[in-house]
Amino acid sequence: MSVRTPDPDWNGDDEPTGAPTPNTNPGWLSDLELAEIRGRLPLLYVEAVPVRVDGLGQVTEVGVLLRANAVGEMTRTLVSGRVMYGETVRDALFRHLEKDLGPMAFPLLPTSPVPFTVAEYFPLPGISPFTDDRQHAVSLAFVVPVTGTCEPRQDALEVTWMTPAEAASDSIGDELEGGRGLLVRQALASVGALR
Amino acid sequence: MSVRTPDPDWNGDDEPTGAPTPNTNPGWLSDLELAEIRGRLPLLYVEAVPVRVDGLGQVTEVGVLLRANAVGEMTRTLVSGRVMYGETVRDALFRHLEKDLGPMAFPLLPTSPVPFTVAEYFPLPGISPFTDDRQHAVSLAFVVPVTGTCEPRQDALEVTWMTPAEAASDSIGDELEGGRGLLVRQALASVGALR
Amino acid sequence: MSVRTPDPDWNGDDEPTGAPTPNTNPGWLSDLELAEIRGRLPLLYVEAVPVRVDGLGQVTEVGVLLRANAVGEMTRTLVSGRVMYGETVRDALFRHLEKDLGPMAFPLLPTSPVPFTVAEYFPLPGISPFTDDRQHAVSLAFVVPVTGTCEPRQDALEVTWMTPAEAASDSIGDELEGGRGLLVRQALASVGALR
Amino acid sequence: MSVRTPDPDWNGDDEPTGAPTPNTNPGWLSDLELAEIRGRLPLLYVEAVPVRVDGLGQVTEVGVLLRANAVGEMTRTLVSGRVMYGETVRDALFRHLEKDLGPMAFPLLPTSPVPFTVAEYFPLPGISPFTDDRQHAVSLAFVVPVTGTCEPRQDALEVTWMTPAEAASDSIGDELEGGRGLLVRQALASVGALR
Repeated sequence: MSVRTPDPDWNGDDEPTGAPTPNTNPGWLSDLELAEIRGRLPLLYVEAVPVRVDGLGQVTEVGVLLRANAVGEMTRTLVSGRVMYGETVRDALFRHLEKDLGPMAFPLLPTSPVPFTVAEYFPLPGISPFTDDRQHAVSLAFVVPVTGTCEPRQDALEVTWMTPAEAASDSIGDELEGGRGLLVRQALASVGALR
Repeated sequence: MSVRTPDPDWNGDDEPTGAPTPNTNPGWLSDLELAEIRGRLPLLYVEAVPVRVDGLGQVTEVGVLLRANAVGEMTRTLVSGRVMYGETVRDALFRHLEKDLGPMAFPLLPTSPVPFTVAEYFPLPGISPFTDDRQHAVSLAFVVPVTGTCEPRQDALEVTWMTPAEAASDSIGDELEGGRGLLVRQALASVGALR
Repeated sequence: MSVRTPDPDWNGDDEPTGAPTPNTNPGWLSDLELAEIRGRLPLLYVEAVPVRVDGLGQVTEVGVLLRANAVGEMTRTLVSGRVMYGETVRDALFRHLEKDLGPMAFPLLPTSPVPFTVAEYFPLPGISPFTDDRQHAVSLAFVVPVTGTCEPRQDALEVTWMTPAEAASDSIGDELEGGRGLLVRQALASVGALR
Repeated sequence: MSVRTPDPDWNGDDEPTGAPTPNTNPGWLSDLELAEIRGRLPLLYVEAVPVRVDGLGQVTEVGVLLRANAVGEMTRTLVSGRVMYGETVRDALFRHLEKDLGPMAFPLLPTSPVPFTVAEYFPLPGISPFTDDRQHAVSLAFVVPVTGTCEPRQDALEVTWMTPAEAASDSIGDELEGGRGLLVRQALASVGALR
């Protein structure tokens, strides 16, 4: 059993993306270990709402990821992934932005380590507005301007850019998995772009 | 080996405090399991800087805990503890406030789920300003006004109330373990009480 | 012309409420002076979204003011008013809470001086989501838990308590003057109570 | 008496910088008018702490302005200026950044309209940590990364770049006018760069 095998349900989203590896890997978990831990501890995640901004810093567009889930359905989601052992939150945020948006996205990470919200995902609905049937995850969510070209590195992914109004709409909200439609609205509220 | 035995190094800080148990206990870990996990995953913590406020909400005093550590030295610390599986951040914050300040402290939890900072503790110094030789912990830190009487429930603990200026001083900062002197200054800055 | 005459359009909302007057009154303006200044300078306001919270700090209800405007129409609004010369933001917030909610509301002012948003009101629509046909006003907006009994001190005012979902609804939003339906939604997003 | 004459004490800091003028000028005040208003109303300001960041968004350097004040003494200050009638906070922030850092500074304005703190300046000391003997000013303060070359447009100004530790030092703090040494420390605390 390879200790380095990433969790397949995650579409490899925890495999480091090469060059600036912030950590060596005592923290790699086998599928079995991860499955066990998921029933025992809340896992720490970072999440990013990618945006385009104008010259005054105002959000003009929101990037939403489109991908096929395990059963082949198309769902929308945000940039998201686990914080690894020994990795800073900032490193994790950068790594997952690169994983989901490609190396030419040139994200501008926030200067502040404070997220716009802390999203809590539980396996069962009703405890919070967010659900994740695999695990209890606590996610630090950030709005991140990107200045380059987004080319998702995994075939199943596409980035759709839309106006704040579209991103906050019920129809997009319903397509965002795990209740992330609300997360997008919270993100827009935090930057004064909810209408 | 009892699955419910709390981690002794933590001075029982993860034992639920009775009545409003927010979670049943599939998430309880044996000492051995916890020791293993600590080398594999970042653990999610909440931390509180207890304060007294005046009628206008301005911080007048800061509460710092005094306790004996494993080798009998007196050190200062803050209200702190792990978020359990299935437990909300808010429930964890309340549970640890009650554990460290007693049931009559009557803390006023913040309306916002956003911490004033995210403190990252690493076993090795230099990665961040905060260290914890047991583990990689990521802590959501909140300023929490308390309105009642603080009576720490564990013998080793005492709450010392001091002015913001004292709490921000180098001498108190040096006594706060793991670099938490900075956390206190960040807390005071966030409420406009750093001078 | 009395220099102390408050601006009648404001329903006296700038008349200090007695006892703890934070400032003497070189800053009192006649109606004419105020009218002139309103076309020359942005005026600084504070605004509060009063809420009820449960024992864990979660918002359970939102208080919205109902009042008759100058032409006798009933409109909804929030606690709001000008910051006077020599007065701190915190003092102004307390003064307007007392003016609009009465002396027994017992508001818990936030420890942090940072508002959940900065709302900009312009006389003409389109510059920002908020309008005020009298003036250019910039408002620091706070969520404020109240623990007592709200008894608006002016006949025209009534406080209506509603769930976060009702407060965020389109129908209530449409009744809130100047675009404040959005301000309520931003407030709810900031405390994790937007759904 | 020219209505457009800017306040000389301000070194022309309220003269718009040309091209993207967000507002026409009913709001221009003569010296006399401004002097009068300054004793009657709090004035709304924006303030920026310019920073350099690394690829992960971490603050590596802080920019502090050096200039001669009215009596020829050299003092340090931050990017600062008044919000004009009809101007958005964001436009004012951009205008003052350009005025103080030059047109090639390429500031990255924050996506969020929420300042890291609200600094209150009073003519008399003791009400707040900040003083301004000319007026009562309330300032929305932001940390702003700049990516270009800073060339202050007024002869008296120079930008000094220093490490966060230097910027937070007592010696620099003492040279910053009006108590802004504290504002720099609050800025650094907000981005996790206070040590």
